[in-house]
Amino acid sequence: MPTYTPPLRDMQFVMHEVLKVSDEFKALPPHAEVDADTINAVLEEGGKFAAEVAFPLNISGDTEGCKLDKSTHEVTTPQGFKEAYAKYVEGGWAALSCDPAYGGQGLPFVVNQCFYEMMNSANQAWTMYPGLSHGAYECLHAHGTEEQKKIYLPKLTSGEWTGTMCLTEPHCGTDLGLLRTKAEPQADGTYKITGAKIFISAGEHDMTSNIVHLVLARLPDAPVGSKGISLFVVPKFKVNADGSLGERNAIYCGGLEHKMGIHGNATAQIVIDGATGTMVGQPNKGLAAMFVMMNAARLGVGNQSLGLTEVAYQNALAYAKDRIQMRSLSGTKAKDKPADPIIVHPDVRKMLLTAKAYAEGGRALQCFCALLLDKELSHPDEKVRKESGEMLALLTPIVKAFITDNGYEAATMCQQVFGGHGYIKEWGMEQYVRDARINMIYEGTNTIQSLDLLGRKILGNNGATLKKFGKLVGQLVEEEGVNEKMAEFINPIAYLGDQMTKFTTEIGFRGMQNPDEVGAAAVDYLRVAGHLVFGYFFARMAQVALREIAAGNTDPFYQAKLQTARFYFAKLFPETATLMRTARAGSKVLMDTDLALA
Amino acid sequence: MPTYTPPLRDMQFVMHEVLKVSDEFKALPPHAEVDADTINAVLEEGGKFAAEVAFPLNISGDTEGCKLDKSTHEVTTPQGFKEAYAKYVEGGWAALSCDPAYGGQGLPFVVNQCFYEMMNSANQAWTMYPGLSHGAYECLHAHGTEEQKKIYLPKLTSGEWTGTMCLTEPHCGTDLGLLRTKAEPQADGTYKITGAKIFISAGEHDMTSNIVHLVLARLPDAPVGSKGISLFVVPKFKVNADGSLGERNAIYCGGLEHKMGIHGNATAQIVIDGATGTMVGQPNKGLAAMFVMMNAARLGVGNQSLGLTEVAYQNALAYAKDRIQMRSLSGTKAKDKPADPIIVHPDVRKMLLTAKAYAEGGRALQCFCALLLDKELSHPDEKVRKESGEMLALLTPIVKAFITDNGYEAATMCQQVFGGHGYIKEWGMEQYVRDARINMIYEGTNTIQSLDLLGRKILGNNGATLKKFGKLVGQLVEEEGVNEKMAEFINPIAYLGDQMTKFTTEIGFRGMQNPDEVGAAAVDYLRVAGHLVFGYFFARMAQVALREIAAGNTDPFYQAKLQTARFYFAKLFPETATLMRTARAGSKVLMDTDLALA
Repeated sequence: MPTYTPPLRDMQFVMHEVLKVSDEFKALPPHAEVDADTINAVLEEGGKFAAEVAFPLNISGDTEGCKLDKSTHEVTTPQGFKEAYAKYVEGGWAALSCDPAYGGQGLPFVVNQCFYEMMNSANQAWTMYPGLSHGAYECLHAHGTEEQKKIYLPKLTSGEWTGTMCLTEPHCGTDLGLLRTKAEPQADGTYKITGAKIFISAGEHDMTSNIVHLVLARLPDAPVGSKGISLFVVPKFKVNADGSLGERNAIYCGGLEHKMGIHGNATAQIVIDGATGTMVGQPNKGLAAMFVMMNAARLGVGNQSLGLTEVAYQNALAYAKDRIQMRSLSGTKAKDKPADPIIVHPDVRKMLLTAKAYAEGGRALQCFCALLLDKELSHPDEKVRKESGEMLALLTPIVKAFITDNGYEAATMCQQVFGGHGYIKEWGMEQYVRDARINMIYEGTNTIQSLDLLGRKILGNNGATLKKFGKLVGQLVEEEGVNEKMAEFINPIAYLGDQMTKFTTEIGFRGMQNPDEVGAAAVDYLRVAGHLVFGYFFARMAQVALREIAAGNTDPFYQAKLQTARFYFAKLFPETATLMRTARAGSKVLMDTDLALA
Repeated sequence: MPTYTPPLRDMQFVMHEVLKVSDEFKALPPHAEVDADTINAVLEEGGKFAAEVAFPLNISGDTEGCKLDKSTHEVTTPQGFKEAYAKYVEGGWAALSCDPAYGGQGLPFVVNQCFYEMMNSANQAWTMYPGLSHGAYECLHAHGTEEQKKIYLPKLTSGEWTGTMCLTEPHCGTDLGLLRTKAEPQADGTYKITGAKIFISAGEHDMTSNIVHLVLARLPDAPVGSKGISLFVVPKFKVNADGSLGERNAIYCGGLEHKMGIHGNATAQIVIDGATGTMVGQPNKGLAAMFVMMNAARLGVGNQSLGLTEVAYQNALAYAKDRIQMRSLSGTKAKDKPADPIIVHPDVRKMLLTAKAYAEGGRALQCFCALLLDKELSHPDEKVRKESGEMLALLTPIVKAFITDNGYEAATMCQQVFGGHGYIKEWGMEQYVRDARINMIYEGTNTIQSLDLLGRKILGNNGATLKKFGKLVGQLVEEEGVNEKMAEFINPIAYLGDQMTKFTTEIGFRGMQNPDEVGAAAVDYLRVAGHLVFGYFFARMAQVALREIAAGNTDPFYQAKLQTARFYFAKLFPETATLMRTARAGSKVLMDTDLALA
């Protein structure tokens, strides 16, 4: 059976020593008083909840799965899930970074980010139930009417109700412009909604008394395509004026999917049979409103894979120290044992360090993004808010795609460390691989992320935001360019930054002549960008570590960080050499293949 | 539900047009009469068996799994498995390339190779039952006493009985030197065997009246470690002198593993409680005898992933043509539809072509290896036999590791083409990923394969065999060096061949000073070698295609082959740029990480 220890020390390092979040919070009125001690105390408790309440339900939840009673349309979640949720609500965890106006604790997002990383390590399938609520909360908070906010936000904040995103239909996932669910205006200002949705995560369950579905649908006179989509809030139970639950709404679960993983989460087919809903935001502007939710969800999906990477790593590391098999190539290490622990083998170390480096790089990036979100929402200076939002928009597809691709690779490698035992359910490793797999698919496939990055976020504004990230890299290069000890961390990112600038211009020109050139390069480009970002954060982490060591700090944490950074630059970062080459290979070898793909 | 069409045309291309197997067979007395028509007719029938009998049981077998009755120790395989096996035996498929002296059909291994590729596409879990028998057959054929051969080979040839390999124990997989199962000599020349084995594929089932277990165990006076291991044949039912079944032997299934995939195959814990066995080969030379089986099994595992790659590709291709979603970046393609089929998107093509190129490269390599095996066993010239065996030994770890790593990547990409539907069981794609995963682990993990390749097969003989493969590449380069049309296929392998030669010398020197340098480079090295080999075969396939086109052949197959080869060299082969770099990065960044891995 796997184990899990919350990585509090590394979170503290990233937040307090690298990003210095408390200094940043001083400029943000709602968080000006939030200091390191507060954050650490919250996360320590959060880590306990993750490790002690959610984690023990992970394998059993996978084995049991969810059950639908077709006669009542009610779903039973795996044993213990409901009770764990009650503890979650009782502990106030749902409210962590919600608006105090609706009962929230108002803590910065970066705290919620770290809490959710631990929850995802502990139990991704369980964590998706409250996780989806956050998206619904954000969306209603940004676009709901005063009445909608009054009805729904306090309950979503407390966790008394959960929320969902009902987007996908059988014939459309990526291409929401094709959706068919109808919304007919009623005399009382509500809408009568009819349609069929699929793949609705946490779409039905027995944890809460109500579920707040946010549903994309079309008005009768809506333009075709994505410009004719509106957003509606459709609760499972209608809500009376006094906030009490009214009659059952005609929105129910028609089936549950049998999936590769995340068995503990109910992936529901949702039948909407003339249900009553109210509109969120403006008519035909539903996609824009939904994107508030989607962007939060994309960061959340990256965080799911970050969590899985960390827990897979911890267990593979423990196994590699414990399992004895063969002798070290360079001579016996454990003379008192019939064989050496497998951690003596270089490739076992490589697999472990890959997962560790991806976890630590991902953690730095995710915290940086959460801090940008805090600034976007709370900084008094509009320019800072705007620039923070733009930088976050640039980094969001990288978080979603790069961290989830890495997470699948890392989970696969950690499983490999276990040899045959990694393939057996009871060890828990194969579940991490199966769970991690969905993160590359949902909330926009990783290919879609790459097109969002290169097409919209980079070429769409002539590389302006990318240049701002490049400036951060440039500043670090300038700061540390003469520091010999930093050369091994600085030179690679300086070189790659230059390369990317050139290639971005090149692909911009090519794309104007043939847009397929952008599509052909995008996935490779995103991975290069991901390495530039990870490289930047590893360099910053190394910078802090070197300074601490120079100042006489003997905490082995800093030497460990340098070792991981060195590994990263020597063994993972060089992937960019191939990626630049294949990105440059162009679209012809892909598109002139009608006969090969006949 | 997935579909499967046997890739007979591509098999014929590889066998008859690229490798010209019938010409080679003329030199092999047992196969001198085997012509293309015979091979094609057998494979056409074999393809029907795979597609019509084994394939329909793939998803149901995965869903049902195997069931153990703990009171009788009997295992029930999924519905239909037993009946399909009866048809397999009835059709004579078990005997395809077995020795006519024991009732076999004596066809070349290359035919069996292609037949088994199709069986693996159809149903890997089912195919493992007869597949494991082949290893037991080969081992007894090479090392059994006359009596053992007389008793066991006819039944294994007909398929009336199946065989297993009982190697792994709970505390030892890779490191068989640690094994503890005991074999005590008895007065009648038999051995009394006691111990516990795990992970025994096809270890118990209801398909045949007897199961022939080949068991590694230690004699009482055996030296410690791998030099003290002997091999025994331990049948489930003892066999009377007249060949009829005697009493139940004390070897039984104590449990079945719950696994990530290959649910239809019974992965058994085997309890051996004073069972009666006879020795195969010499005392304490069991590992050598077992390696006959292991080498066959390693080629077989590569073939499993080749089969999965092909079937995953076929289904992803069909889906990509059928599923409409978004418009092409370069303008609407399907004007009559509300969206374009997703095959218009460059990255969807990239995922499809990756799987196709890995399937076609793998098929060429596997057939080449099967032909080497035929030559090793049947060529009248001892020198040819020896050299064929050496070349096969060099290529075996590449087949095992490169094709299985590629297969997992390909299955994952083909699943990705399906978007969210790829994560749902009914589409069948997630099963291919789960099944493909084991192939990177069993029969020696892919790390072990890389050490076998670099440490033993290459540095172990100072690169002598590698040079022979290099000579094949050199010949092709010389033949086609002045052919402009071949330059795009020839230049990359000529360059990489040079690079590898240099790096092999370099790593040989470094390894003498520090053996961990070999361990640190081996996995990357194997993938480079894999690309050199695939590159060589793609160049040879392109050579044939270009010649056919030049001769006026208008079969679109040849243009399709050139398109796939171009894609391969442009988008997959460049991985070697990174791999050479990371292989050269050395062992220090892996081994000086005790603090990071604390």
